[in-house]
Amino acid sequence: MATMDDIAARAGVSRGAVSLALRRSPKISAKTTEHIFKVATEMGYRPNLNASRLAAKDFSTFGLLVSDLHNPIMADILDGFVMTDDGDIPDTYLASGFNSAKTERAMIDSFLSHRVKGVVLLGSLLPDDEIRKLAQQLPTVAVGRSIDSVDCVLVDDVLGGRLAADHIKKPRHTHVAHIDGGDGAGAAPRKTAFLNVFESNDAVDLTVLKGDYTQEGGYRCARVLFSGPRPPSAIFAANDLTALGVLGAAREFGLIAGEHFDLVGFDDITLAAYDYISLTTISYSRADMGRIARELVQRRCSDVHAPFQTIELPPQLIVR
Amino acid sequence: MATMDDIAARAGVSRGAVSLALRRSPKISAKTTEHIFKVATEMGYRPNLNASRLAAKDFSTFGLLVSDLHNPIMADILDGFVMTDDGDIPDTYLASGFNSAKTERAMIDSFLSHRVKGVVLLGSLLPDDEIRKLAQQLPTVAVGRSIDSVDCVLVDDVLGGRLAADHIKKPRHTHVAHIDGGDGAGAAPRKTAFLNVFESNDAVDLTVLKGDYTQEGGYRCARVLFSGPRPPSAIFAANDLTALGVLGAAREFGLIAGEHFDLVGFDDITLAAYDYISLTTISYSRADMGRIARELVQRRCSDVHAPFQTIELPPQLIVR
Repeated sequence: MATMDDIAARAGVSRGAVSLALRRSPKISAKTTEHIFKVATEMGYRPNLNASRLAAKDFSTFGLLVSDLHNPIMADILDGFVMTDDGDIPDTYLASGFNSAKTERAMIDSFLSHRVKGVVLLGSLLPDDEIRKLAQQLPTVAVGRSIDSVDCVLVDDVLGGRLAADHIKKPRHTHVAHIDGGDGAGAAPRKTAFLNVFESNDAVDLTVLKGDYTQEGGYRCARVLFSGPRPPSAIFAANDLTALGVLGAAREFGLIAGEHFDLVGFDDITLAAYDYISLTTISYSRADMGRIARELVQRRCSDVHAPFQTIELPPQLIVR
Repeated sequence: MATMDDIAARAGVSRGAVSLALRRSPKISAKTTEHIFKVATEMGYRPNLNASRLAAKDFSTFGLLVSDLHNPIMADILDGFVMTDDGDIPDTYLASGFNSAKTERAMIDSFLSHRVKGVVLLGSLLPDDEIRKLAQQLPTVAVGRSIDSVDCVLVDDVLGGRLAADHIKKPRHTHVAHIDGGDGAGAAPRKTAFLNVFESNDAVDLTVLKGDYTQEGGYRCARVLFSGPRPPSAIFAANDLTALGVLGAAREFGLIAGEHFDLVGFDDITLAAYDYISLTTISYSRADMGRIARELVQRRCSDVHAPFQTIELPPQLIVR
C-alpha cells in the first residue's frame, strides 16, 4: 500500500504536507489538499482507521458475536441486522464463539481492545451477570434471551414452549421427551414452559435430556431415548437443528416422525419446510430480530442513559 | 471502561505515571509498574490495541471474508481455520459478503483500513484480477478457486466435475442437466469438466442452467427443468445447497430422486448423509481446507517473497 513518502514523492510535496493534507489541516491550502488527496487515491492510499479513529474518537464499528456459525438462524439474523432501509451495510466485525464460552470471552476481549462502539451477542453461552457487566462498559444487545439491565431482543420462549406442549398434549401422548438447549440462549424458558403443561398430569411420563442446540446433540440424545425400554411417543426438540439430529437417529431405529412418534422443533429453519423433512416447529421472524437488534444498539449508542428495552417477538406453531 | 485518570486516582499516582507504566517504560520502577497494572486490571482496563498496535507496528489480526454465511460449508472451513494444534484461536475479523460482490468490496476496504495483516477469501464472487491486485497489497489467500500469483486452496474441481459425469454416464442417461454455480468459486471448472465428458456424445441431450450455489437458485432452475417438455433424467447440481433446492422442486412435481431422476451434488454437507436426504455427492475435507488456508496466509505473512502455492484437495464420489 502507498505510504505518505510515496504520495509525497508523486505529488511533489513534503511528507509533512501530505500528513497535514490527509488530516485536512487548515495549515495547507484547499487546492494543495485536493491535489494530494487525488494523488493519494490514485495510488491506492486508504486512511488508517486505527489511527484516524484514535485521533477523531469516532468508533463507528459494531462487534457481532455469533455463538455458533453452524446454526442457520444466525445467518438469517445477520441478514436482518445489515438490511438497512438506505442499503448501507453497518461497519461490523463479526466473530464466532465456536460454541464455547471460553472463546466468546476471548472474542469480547478482542472487541473491547479494538474499541468497538457496541456489541451484539447472538445466542451467547455466557451467564447473565457477565453480559450485564459488559453492558455497563459499552452498548450491548443480547439476541435470543432476556437479561435485566441489558437491551434484549428474543422470541417469546415461554409462549413457544407452551405452544409445543399444547400441540403434543392434544393427541394424549403418555411418554413425552424434551431434548433441551443446554446453556444456550432461551433454552431454560422453553423447557420450563413445556414441562409446566405436563407436570400436573401424572398420566404422562416425562423425560428431559440435555442437548446443546446442535444436530450432533439431538442425534446423541435421540439414540438414548430410542434404545431405552420405553421410547417416547412425542419429542420436543429445543431447536430445529436438534430435531434434525432426532430424525437422523430415528431412521437408524426404523422409526418415522409423524408415524411412530411426534416431533416438534423450534426456529422454522428453511429446511424444516421441505417436504422430505416436513418438521412441525415454532416459527418467528429472524429478519425482524436482526433489524431490532441493530435499532437497539444504535439507540443505546446515541443515548447511554435510555431505559433498557426487552423486545419479545411472538412465535407461532407451524404444523407440518 | 476505566480511563487512565481513573486508574491514576485509585493507584495514587499521576496520570503520566500510569501512561508510562502501561507502556512498560523503564522510566517507572518495576514495583510501581506492577502496582499500576494490578489496579488497572482490577478496574477492568484493557490495552487499546488500536493504539498499541500503531505504536508497536504489530498487526496480528487476519481478515476472513465469507461470501455467503448461509452455506454450511463456510462454518466447516472456519472451524478448520481456527483449529490450531496449540488451541489458540488466531485473532480474526470475520466479515460476510452477503452473496454480493459489491458488499465484498466494501468489506475488503474495511479490512484494509483496519490494517489487517492478511486476508482470506472464502468463496469470493470477485473477478480474478481484483483478487490478484489485493494479493499485491497484502498477504491474501483465496479459498475455493485457483488464481495465478495468489496463494490458493481448493478442491480439485476438474476431477470433481468428471467424477459426477462418470457416475451419471454409467446408467446411460440421454437427458442430462447441469445447474451451475454462476460466478461462484469453482463453478466454471466444475461445469467444463462435467460437460467435457458428454460433449462428444450426440446421443446425450445436455441442458445447462445458471444457478448461484443457493437453495433458492436450485429450486428455481429445477422448476424450469421439470416443467419443460423433456425433463432431465439426471441432474448435476454445482453444490449440495443447489441439490437441496432441486429436491424441494422435485417433490412439488411428484418426482423422487433416485427413482425418477438421478441427482449428484457437490460438498457433502452434513445433511447430505442423512437417510431422508441421502444425496450422492462429491466429498472432500473442509477442515483441511481451513487449516491449509491458515498455514498459507501465515507463511505469506512471514515471507512475502515466497513462491505462490496452489493446493488442490482430492475429492471423491460418495454414492448414496
